[in-house]
Amino acid sequence: MDAKEFRQRGKEMVDYVADYIEGIEGRQVYPDVEPGYLRPLIPNTAPQEPETFEAIIKDVERIIMPGVTHWHSPYFFAYFPTASSYPAMLADMLCGAIGCIGFSWGSASEATLVALLAARTKAVRHLQATSPGLTQAMIMEKLVAYASDQAHSSVERAGLIGGVKLKAIPSDGKFVMRASALQEALERDKAEGLIPFFVVATLGTTSCCSFDNLLEVGPICHQESLWLHIDAAYAGSAFICPEFRPLLNGVEFADSFNFNPHKWLLVNFDCSAMWVKKRTDLTGAFKMDPTYLQHSHQDSGLITDYRHWQLPLGRRFRSLKMWFVFRLYGVKGLQAYIRKHVQLSHEFESLVQQDPRFEICAEVTLGLVCFRLRGSNKLNEALLEKINSARKIHLVPCHLRDQFVLRFAICSRTVESDHVRFAWEHIQGLATELLRA
Amino acid sequence: MDAKEFRQRGKEMVDYVADYIEGIEGRQVYPDVEPGYLRPLIPNTAPQEPETFEAIIKDVERIIMPGVTHWHSPYFFAYFPTASSYPAMLADMLCGAIGCIGFSWGSASEATLVALLAARTKAVRHLQATSPGLTQAMIMEKLVAYASDQAHSSVERAGLIGGVKLKAIPSDGKFVMRASALQEALERDKAEGLIPFFVVATLGTTSCCSFDNLLEVGPICHQESLWLHIDAAYAGSAFICPEFRPLLNGVEFADSFNFNPHKWLLVNFDCSAMWVKKRTDLTGAFKMDPTYLQHSHQDSGLITDYRHWQLPLGRRFRSLKMWFVFRLYGVKGLQAYIRKHVQLSHEFESLVQQDPRFEICAEVTLGLVCFRLRGSNKLNEALLEKINSARKIHLVPCHLRDQFVLRFAICSRTVESDHVRFAWEHIQGLATELLRA
Repeated sequence: MDAKEFRQRGKEMVDYVADYIEGIEGRQVYPDVEPGYLRPLIPNTAPQEPETFEAIIKDVERIIMPGVTHWHSPYFFAYFPTASSYPAMLADMLCGAIGCIGFSWGSASEATLVALLAARTKAVRHLQATSPGLTQAMIMEKLVAYASDQAHSSVERAGLIGGVKLKAIPSDGKFVMRASALQEALERDKAEGLIPFFVVATLGTTSCCSFDNLLEVGPICHQESLWLHIDAAYAGSAFICPEFRPLLNGVEFADSFNFNPHKWLLVNFDCSAMWVKKRTDLTGAFKMDPTYLQHSHQDSGLITDYRHWQLPLGRRFRSLKMWFVFRLYGVKGLQAYIRKHVQLSHEFESLVQQDPRFEICAEVTLGLVCFRLRGSNKLNEALLEKINSARKIHLVPCHLRDQFVLRFAICSRTVESDHVRFAWEHIQGLATELLRA
Repeated sequence: MDAKEFRQRGKEMVDYVADYIEGIEGRQVYPDVEPGYLRPLIPNTAPQEPETFEAIIKDVERIIMPGVTHWHSPYFFAYFPTASSYPAMLADMLCGAIGCIGFSWGSASEATLVALLAARTKAVRHLQATSPGLTQAMIMEKLVAYASDQAHSSVERAGLIGGVKLKAIPSDGKFVMRASALQEALERDKAEGLIPFFVVATLGTTSCCSFDNLLEVGPICHQESLWLHIDAAYAGSAFICPEFRPLLNGVEFADSFNFNPHKWLLVNFDCSAMWVKKRTDLTGAFKMDPTYLQHSHQDSGLITDYRHWQLPLGRRFRSLKMWFVFRLYGVKGLQAYIRKHVQLSHEFESLVQQDPRFEICAEVTLGLVCFRLRGSNKLNEALLEKINSARKIHLVPCHLRDQFVLRFAICSRTVESDHVRFAWEHIQGLATELLRA
């Protein structure tokens, strides 16, 4: 869908929305479908080829609307109100278009925290079952979680919030968490009487897009009964392409897995997808059932109450965005999108390699290139400062060990080879100025 | 703004969005405004009278855009990509219109959790400073949080997640948390060597919209150095009307306060607003500063990094919705909206009172009426079952002490006296059938 079609479809959608709201009184306020009604109405897989907008909007009435509780019907007197107004909807359209991420990028953070809390609950219950004299606090004091020294800051934060120790495992020369370093930490901590319970492995680290070695780390977690959470926030989208699936090898050892379609799969922020191997491990940690939230299907096993899976009770209807995107792009369209970004990052990589003043600092696997001027951190800090104050392009840095490194991430839906080449020539020009001064 | 105007403005917005995205390459990717640039450009208060849409959209370019980092510019190579596509935007429009709340209603839950975690950190640090031998686990084992037995289930959940005890304070005959019951619990727990640290007071409880007595509870919290968090998720919106402000008396004792504009202030889900008295108490609990998130203003005190205030790192640009709503309704429009809902609930209350088969179960203050048939819980469960399976209107129940009670909440933006009367006659009819059977 291009801008021209969006102008048309957007206006149709505006009318659809206005019709929906004007006609809401005529709709049955509460659905009479049964759990599972949706399953036979939708295919088992996303379409390979893009579908038409007409097909989707027809399905909205046929498939989606019969299952909707119309919270804005004037016959809805349940719970408390949830707001709705035309101005807010207009603003949300604009908000979606701007699509900026306030201060950072994701709620993979929440997934990590939820997994850690579930693992904590599981560990506490297990230990209390075997040693009934132990209090929760006595156990929590000894629990230790682990992640690579390249893991995202949200992992450390999850440990802090969960009130447990988090230890950083030194990654290897390629910024990968390996068996030996993890095993060493586990042995040392167990010898000190601590209780390892949780490991976060990252596929596609934030700093340099390195991949922890699941085939090594997974079996250790399995053997030691540690909860293995995989944070694939960025890289997860790439696994839609068969050629990147080997990066997932070992995923079978994971207890939980998360990636953010709102990063790299064309679904606007926010939308973070999480899988767990055993759902009761999660729901057991958070379940609360006050009268006003109980419903007739809750013990049937037929439905999935996501309120037991997450921190907030409420959630937006985010799957609608995924459904539109999967259908309108098709798997092939999404694969082509990922491949184009990866190809552009390799193009940038080869431009950097042709200039002997620069070096590549980590292997380029997906859409991120880490590079720097050969020389001091100070020099590279000055280069970044020049780049960002010129305001033609925008980059952020990272530290790889003690090196200050520039990150060039392929981001925009509309970025082309021309933009990448422009960016590189611009960086080269600023580097020349800097080295001359 | 009515549906007719929305059709027009919505289509203008679609064009604005398409223009924005088509022209994004021509915009400077990273803003060069200084922290605080926005302050003098916007008024100190929301407008009393509604403004026009033209005025707002003009201000989007004048006021908002100069401060935006254009995450979807093809010159943006920072962090990782954040997704954007036309299909996702279309879906989000529909999602906004449906505005259903998956399984429940709010992220006041997150606010409570964040406040509890901040209070926990503060308590642990304070005690470790005075008794350096204490470990975090030794302290956490003794920490106790308190809330009324009428508090929302998310409060109990926050205690569970935070790994601290949460005790329910028995409310009085009007479902209000009072000084005596709280004081009693505190004395008993302190005598047992426990450490009280956190109290949640609710303004507008979920079950019956009762208001904890802040003028009694506040001074106790102050005297005992307990963090007082106020959960006004639903009722908070009503405080825009001067006549409801007395319900806030004692708010000066609060350390943190939260309400959900997405419930009752016409801002579509989700949008939850939280205040803290001392921001460093929150930010101190969560702060993480990896290189890729650092920026030049972070130690200046000039800007507020909300990533230190919340659990996820990222956040949607929700304030845009509030800004549109405040301006297009004006304070007066919002006050009129609240007052109308309150008036409708009193109308329903008086209808119930005129039928001697029914009773009102709690004082009606805002938009919620708790009522039941005089008789057994079983009878009322059967009535609710009849009401909800007829699917003409939708209600949820609650328990007040051991009574099963029906909650009639005025919810919809478009609900009128006619709908309320229809609902009442429908309920009466079903009650007649039930009592005859």
